[in-house]
Amino acid sequence: MTLKGNAIVAQSGGPSAVINNSICGVIQTWLAEAPFGTIYAGIAGVKGILDGDIIDLALQDAEKIAGLRHTPGAGIFSCRYKVTDDDQRRLVQILKEHDIRYFFYNGGNDSMDTAHKTWLAAQEAGWEMRVIGVPKTIDNDLPFTDHCPGFGSAAKYIATTVRETGIDLESVSTKNKVTILEAMGRDAGWLTGASVLSRRFPDEAPHLIYLPEVPFDKQQFIADVKKVYDELGYCYVVVSEGIRDKNGDYCFAAGSVDAFGHKQLSGVGVALKDLVEAELGISARCNTLGTAQRSAMHCASRTDAEEAYLAGQTAVRYALADKSGIMVTLERAGDEPYKCVCGETPLANVANLEKKVPREWINEAGNYVTEDFVRYVRPLVQGEAPVPMKDGLPDYVRLDFSKGRLK
Amino acid sequence: MTLKGNAIVAQSGGPSAVINNSICGVIQTWLAEAPFGTIYAGIAGVKGILDGDIIDLALQDAEKIAGLRHTPGAGIFSCRYKVTDDDQRRLVQILKEHDIRYFFYNGGNDSMDTAHKTWLAAQEAGWEMRVIGVPKTIDNDLPFTDHCPGFGSAAKYIATTVRETGIDLESVSTKNKVTILEAMGRDAGWLTGASVLSRRFPDEAPHLIYLPEVPFDKQQFIADVKKVYDELGYCYVVVSEGIRDKNGDYCFAAGSVDAFGHKQLSGVGVALKDLVEAELGISARCNTLGTAQRSAMHCASRTDAEEAYLAGQTAVRYALADKSGIMVTLERAGDEPYKCVCGETPLANVANLEKKVPREWINEAGNYVTEDFVRYVRPLVQGEAPVPMKDGLPDYVRLDFSKGRLK
Repeated sequence: MTLKGNAIVAQSGGPSAVINNSICGVIQTWLAEAPFGTIYAGIAGVKGILDGDIIDLALQDAEKIAGLRHTPGAGIFSCRYKVTDDDQRRLVQILKEHDIRYFFYNGGNDSMDTAHKTWLAAQEAGWEMRVIGVPKTIDNDLPFTDHCPGFGSAAKYIATTVRETGIDLESVSTKNKVTILEAMGRDAGWLTGASVLSRRFPDEAPHLIYLPEVPFDKQQFIADVKKVYDELGYCYVVVSEGIRDKNGDYCFAAGSVDAFGHKQLSGVGVALKDLVEAELGISARCNTLGTAQRSAMHCASRTDAEEAYLAGQTAVRYALADKSGIMVTLERAGDEPYKCVCGETPLANVANLEKKVPREWINEAGNYVTEDFVRYVRPLVQGEAPVPMKDGLPDYVRLDFSKGRLK
Repeated sequence: MTLKGNAIVAQSGGPSAVINNSICGVIQTWLAEAPFGTIYAGIAGVKGILDGDIIDLALQDAEKIAGLRHTPGAGIFSCRYKVTDDDQRRLVQILKEHDIRYFFYNGGNDSMDTAHKTWLAAQEAGWEMRVIGVPKTIDNDLPFTDHCPGFGSAAKYIATTVRETGIDLESVSTKNKVTILEAMGRDAGWLTGASVLSRRFPDEAPHLIYLPEVPFDKQQFIADVKKVYDELGYCYVVVSEGIRDKNGDYCFAAGSVDAFGHKQLSGVGVALKDLVEAELGISARCNTLGTAQRSAMHCASRTDAEEAYLAGQTAVRYALADKSGIMVTLERAGDEPYKCVCGETPLANVANLEKKVPREWINEAGNYVTEDFVRYVRPLVQGEAPVPMKDGLPDYVRLDFSKGRLK
């Protein structure tokens, strides 16, 4: 017999272009298929729930909920917040107060850790609750899933930008003949590697790709750039913000750390630009796309957007089928034609574990990815996700957080 | 009686997303309407012509020529090269050798200077030639034209990116609550100001906009950011790479200069991010889109693409009507509905002159643009320019420079 009660959905970590497809999948499926209870949103993740920032999503405009499918950013806001044991107990208490028996948490590694701990805390408190993680990360580093919602769109945006700026690079003959693009990805090079899709001809960008999985050597880098430049007269480099030296230390890392103790990285691209100019005397440019990588809905992958929705929809169906303590996964059910179905894995498996690019998908020199990598990533960027336009710009929606507020 | 002979077209300076619409307009119009001669391309601007890198465009695949309409970068390559008097004489000699009587030059301020000098050098050499400049610049700083082809698309891309990354910023509640976006534009703040289109609601990005037209004061900047942050809990800043202090010196300028003596700028965004973190203790992010601003064809404005083509088409028609020594201009023939027609101005007027944002289109505090600015820029970003997609990515064309080569 299905557990009766309300549901709550929340998001945490950095958004992706299609993250709201997942919560839209959760909300619409709950409203259509759950024969009891309402669905709440915790505004800004567990932090918001702890602060009592909870709204009843059934009272939102259905059109706005549907509009989440083409809206980037975290539609019900997100946080980066490491819950303490005390927080966990308080969180379960709050959920109990609102008769919440279904907890859907949408995020990456750290978020799955939070979901897992919430599940354990509920058990400890004797509060029966279905807890389902809905994966999200442009970094694509969650284990036990073929890939992560959010990654395909970021990959498409990066590859599109590298193709465009690569054509720009080769077409201006006289200066700035090296372009460095810095890609997000602290510990895993999936997004950096995805730039490979940009290249159709051997002389097209990118020419060199550096992932955090392979120790970075500055002298080797300079030699690599020089070789390409000597041959073509220009060189396009894509580099992960998280490259490390042979001792495992981040190259050019800034000092600050976030709530989870992760080092804040940026400036790798600019540092490499300076290095090229100093060592080779070739003027260079650096493109640092920053948060555009995780929010460029106007360039999203339809495949990715649909899978993100499917993951949210499946989370509700799993929960209503009495599953709990799991994360929805994406399984590749076929390569040609590509086919994807949902599966599941225990949250305990996923929490805080990172999936890296296999060494054999990176070439021996450590400066490019292989055909296996291309075969893996190409299906994920297929198709466009149309965005309604107004006055020449994407017309994104905003939920009204003053509606259906619990306090 | 129309002057008989061949034509040549060349591009110079930094590309724009739609620059190839202009040369496509020149090429297709010449091939369709000139009753004599062929049309050559100088590969990589005057530098290429001086090096003898010339191809007969009539021998290119017509489908590829048409494909230039959706391809960024300089389709016949570009250069940044300041011609000497000796170069100018040699250039005219080369044009004479190939019986070139029509010279179409596609570029910005420096390029119009080159076109003007070429016109003068041809007169001096007694070589009758029609010289027409076709405007291009994402900086929008050419005088005597309402706006420049290339600007509308860059404006649309910047405004789209600010909207997307702005939604990202406001939706992540706990960190990196200041985003700085650095926009291109050395001396004129048109592109930086265009980010204003992103904002639909008072609390939406961008909150602060700094143009090079107003002296930049670091203490005032910090006070401005603090005010927005205290009110909203986040702050989105768009800043021109070319901001200057009250002495007229570039803030945070790097040392190098280009062929025209212009200082190379970059790092303003990162410097301001560091400043915010140091002075306010708020973690910040910086997005530096770099060359993506001038090549994002996937996000181009249809209005801009069509006007860029029209400018190229008009250049040929003007030349065949015996006009010379002029640049094609765009004239705003109506605001609601917006209407644009071509006009002309002597190259002598345009060469090396820059059009800045009028002071009265910037607010008194110097940290935002006014409604007049909005009214000016909004029509220029209207409409989308569809790009053929292949395998999930834009399918851009490449001309075959080995075809129809003169040497």
